[in-house]
Amino acid sequence: MHFSVDNFDKLDKFFRRNLINSVTGFKSLNLVGTQNNNGLTNLAPFSQVFHIGASPAYIGLLIRPDSVERHTLDNIEFTKFYTLNHVLSSFYKQAHQSSARYHVSEFEATGLTPEYSSLLPAPYVKEANIKIGLQFEQRNDIRLNGTILIIGSIQELFVPDDCIGEDGMIDLEKAGTITCSGLDTYHTTQKLARLSYAKPDKDLFEI
Amino acid sequence: MHFSVDNFDKLDKFFRRNLINSVTGFKSLNLVGTQNNNGLTNLAPFSQVFHIGASPAYIGLLIRPDSVERHTLDNIEFTKFYTLNHVLSSFYKQAHQSSARYHVSEFEATGLTPEYSSLLPAPYVKEANIKIGLQFEQRNDIRLNGTILIIGSIQELFVPDDCIGEDGMIDLEKAGTITCSGLDTYHTTQKLARLSYAKPDKDLFEI
Repeated sequence: MHFSVDNFDKLDKFFRRNLINSVTGFKSLNLVGTQNNNGLTNLAPFSQVFHIGASPAYIGLLIRPDSVERHTLDNIEFTKFYTLNHVLSSFYKQAHQSSARYHVSEFEATGLTPEYSSLLPAPYVKEANIKIGLQFEQRNDIRLNGTILIIGSIQELFVPDDCIGEDGMIDLEKAGTITCSGLDTYHTTQKLARLSYAKPDKDLFEI
Repeated sequence: MHFSVDNFDKLDKFFRRNLINSVTGFKSLNLVGTQNNNGLTNLAPFSQVFHIGASPAYIGLLIRPDSVERHTLDNIEFTKFYTLNHVLSSFYKQAHQSSARYHVSEFEATGLTPEYSSLLPAPYVKEANIKIGLQFEQRNDIRLNGTILIIGSIQELFVPDDCIGEDGMIDLEKAGTITCSGLDTYHTTQKLARLSYAKPDKDLFEI
């Protein structure tokens, strides 16, 4: 099936939205935890989280301006702190449900449990295995369509002991982290292999 | 296991690199195809590709300035066109190998096959199922650490007929698309469910 720029405009709006949201491939799935100036907690699923740098350790979060995600943005800009919490298959339905437009805290609405560390004023999800605490560093507005790239510096990480290799690599599959595609589809994973560093004229091997 | 900003600096460099590269979760995996002004083709794996907007259809590509990915950036800026090609389990080792620092085309070096459409001067990977042709639109330099966000507009899409639903959602698993974690680990997926649009006070159902 071939779609080109000439017939994109003729596609049904929902068809196009699903098509373009699924065409980039599998995505990470994190619940972002924040709170507002009154201490009201907020939780929302994000599939657009990515690595910006290792030293200093920066993570990027892409936010659409016209969405329910707006509460998350307001809270990050006000309190300067937020958490990322990997989603497990044991609570992916609650994670999905947290995208609804609630007037109460999504923790309360979905039954997920807020949890705090002493380092920062943003709620973690107790049920998650891998958790990241971030401090807001920079907002980048993408002029092309108003999308906002938020960059945060990692303040702390929680990872189960038995899921970190000697070289620092996290075994996400062992930790139970799931992946997602499109706007609403969830998947577990099965490891094919970990491959050695690629060099010209050298054969790859599994590590 | 708990890491905090106070002890990040004491971590071994490679340990920290693996840790931070794996902590964001599963990632998309695309081979980016380009060519230079002499028609020399280039192919490189990228795990930092994401949805920027559906209408117009924009895709973002994150590029580290200090890497082999630099050839890709030069070619995109010179020719204004590039392709994204989903990686399948049948050629993920060749995709990984294409990250080596070759002086010849990575197509030639890895045995993957370049293929062209009439719409744009950048090579697709014939072996891929899902392919996206893009025109360069905007470069966003992230001041914090020199990372570069390239945004392109979709010019055309190739997707197998039997992998697109009536509502436009692509069945990535059926198409054979794989996912990756960290810098070097590859995974197939297994669908848990597709969930209905979340609304307050309404139960989710599988679709």
